[in-house]
Amino acid sequence: MKNRRKTKKIKIGNVFVGGNSPVLIQSMTNTDTADVKKTVKQIKDLEKAGCEIIRVAVPNMKAAKSLGEIKKLINIPLVADIHFSYELALESIKQGVDKLRLNPGNISNLENIKKVVKAAKNKKIPIRIGINGGSLEKSILKKYKNRVTAEGMVESAMRHIKILEDLNFTDILISLKASDIERTVEAYRLLSKKVKYPLHVGVTEAGTAFRGTVISSIGIGYLLYEGIGDTIRVSLTDKPTTEIKVAREILKSLNLKEDGPQITSCPTCGRTEIDLIKLTKQVEDIVKDIKKPIHIAVMGCVVNGPGEAHEADIAIIGGKKVGLIVKKGEIIKNVPENKLLEEFKKELKKL
Amino acid sequence: MKNRRKTKKIKIGNVFVGGNSPVLIQSMTNTDTADVKKTVKQIKDLEKAGCEIIRVAVPNMKAAKSLGEIKKLINIPLVADIHFSYELALESIKQGVDKLRLNPGNISNLENIKKVVKAAKNKKIPIRIGINGGSLEKSILKKYKNRVTAEGMVESAMRHIKILEDLNFTDILISLKASDIERTVEAYRLLSKKVKYPLHVGVTEAGTAFRGTVISSIGIGYLLYEGIGDTIRVSLTDKPTTEIKVAREILKSLNLKEDGPQITSCPTCGRTEIDLIKLTKQVEDIVKDIKKPIHIAVMGCVVNGPGEAHEADIAIIGGKKVGLIVKKGEIIKNVPENKLLEEFKKELKKL
Repeated sequence: MKNRRKTKKIKIGNVFVGGNSPVLIQSMTNTDTADVKKTVKQIKDLEKAGCEIIRVAVPNMKAAKSLGEIKKLINIPLVADIHFSYELALESIKQGVDKLRLNPGNISNLENIKKVVKAAKNKKIPIRIGINGGSLEKSILKKYKNRVTAEGMVESAMRHIKILEDLNFTDILISLKASDIERTVEAYRLLSKKVKYPLHVGVTEAGTAFRGTVISSIGIGYLLYEGIGDTIRVSLTDKPTTEIKVAREILKSLNLKEDGPQITSCPTCGRTEIDLIKLTKQVEDIVKDIKKPIHIAVMGCVVNGPGEAHEADIAIIGGKKVGLIVKKGEIIKNVPENKLLEEFKKELKKL
Repeated sequence: MKNRRKTKKIKIGNVFVGGNSPVLIQSMTNTDTADVKKTVKQIKDLEKAGCEIIRVAVPNMKAAKSLGEIKKLINIPLVADIHFSYELALESIKQGVDKLRLNPGNISNLENIKKVVKAAKNKKIPIRIGINGGSLEKSILKKYKNRVTAEGMVESAMRHIKILEDLNFTDILISLKASDIERTVEAYRLLSKKVKYPLHVGVTEAGTAFRGTVISSIGIGYLLYEGIGDTIRVSLTDKPTTEIKVAREILKSLNLKEDGPQITSCPTCGRTEIDLIKLTKQVEDIVKDIKKPIHIAVMGCVVNGPGEAHEADIAIIGGKKVGLIVKKGEIIKNVPENKLLEEFKKELKKL
């Protein structure tokens, strides 16, 4: 994996993003923001699932005026998602949000932009410029023959960045989401060479849980592998907590987050003589509340079993209705299949 | 995306791999290969799911002697997975398999290797060298301080390749699977610079369906994005058909396979005023048997809705208890939420 790209370190509420900070997981509520009770409940659920920064839509003044109360009742940084309206931005800042998601070029009047920037600067609130393939400016679309391109998305981002920089505002984060992997990856790749601001990474409108998991894993995974990305969001047409589950797995599988046990387990094949699918699910269940980053291997046969077991903290290698329990490469026990889980639990406890 | 790497074109049964051939999906049965009925049933299920090459374990002579009958009853190329035994390899070739998965260096005697290579050459059967992090040679492990490294995996592959090339056998495919993304990606990247043989790509022992889907999507997706990979396998500790589902989605999301409709749909947020999760699942259900590669967008609001709809063949944009049906960027109908699916179906039929 490439070294992580060096970005400006930015404070968002009680967390840091960029610099050498860990990659953080974001999501967005789907409740009516003005419904404080429902919104706070959802944010609490998301916190519990592992969400580290939360964004809420602010489509009207009633929503904006609810932000202060929401902020008081949650523990993670609160981001106000605003389109077009400087009044909503000013109210959100007043209410104490930790970050704005706002494209300054979409506010019609420079004086109004200045008001927002001044207020954000006073309260040390960063602004994320969120470029989305689905809402590129007409002038840019026209330039690129009415097609949404990675170049056009980057050009749009640079316009918004220039507006803020011209006002001496540099607490900037940027996202460049398209609904397909290629444009998303290319847009981030291009922009990462132009600016040092932290990047919020995701593929937008990725679809339902299954399709969205695959697309987000490839797109976000590719960028992280290339060292690009300071915060991530998995966008799914599903419960927001599912987004967090996928995001955590992406970070864990790239060793960007120590996040409980990793279970290596082989696909079953004609050599397997124990019920490996069932066994692995049972092991998953046994370790699901463990927070320590232990490496577990559940292997079906002796071809690759011993090698993988050698690398694991603890492993089960299946044989003919029996299993070996292996610790750090050393065989500890040879037990019949029906006693395997019990013995595994005992050995796990000793770790 | 990078252009696909130029590789040698190799015939496997009735399909081609490498050259400019499409990326093909492989899987492996988990039945006892000697149980012809069960094995054929599973292969047929896999064919139906979209599997394009199937591998079976050949751990003993009874399994080897079943291959001819299996071959007669299936439609996709049959690969015999063999470890150490030249006798099993010779019998598999005799039985008419389309490819061997066999590491020649693991056969103890050069004369025996020659027998296998001669038989394979006579029947024009390619050999895949399958390097697996879990079963590297001791001599290589020793050289790399007892650690499994990408370099060690490539060195192992080059040893096996040399054995075959020295015998003038070049119908070679190679895989280099480790159980983590980084070593897998690095090993393939290194080898892809050294040889022109087609590569079979996958992350091995990736775990159960959820974890395995994320890891395989990142690892396989990264390599395909880099132009590396001629066949793929998603290894899951789950039903083999689940592997195919994930593999198809990976290829589809990278536009490497035209494979039915693509549904772009947004994550829900506080702006959404229709039940988007339910609606998207219903749309998914309506189009699930369509084979044509149409692009559908299901969007929750007017912020990014119109932009994404512009790129789709047909789209639904949700509003306040109503939805717009859009075709190629043009609004066709404005319908109440409860009539939306009905009207969508009508418009879909016209496409």
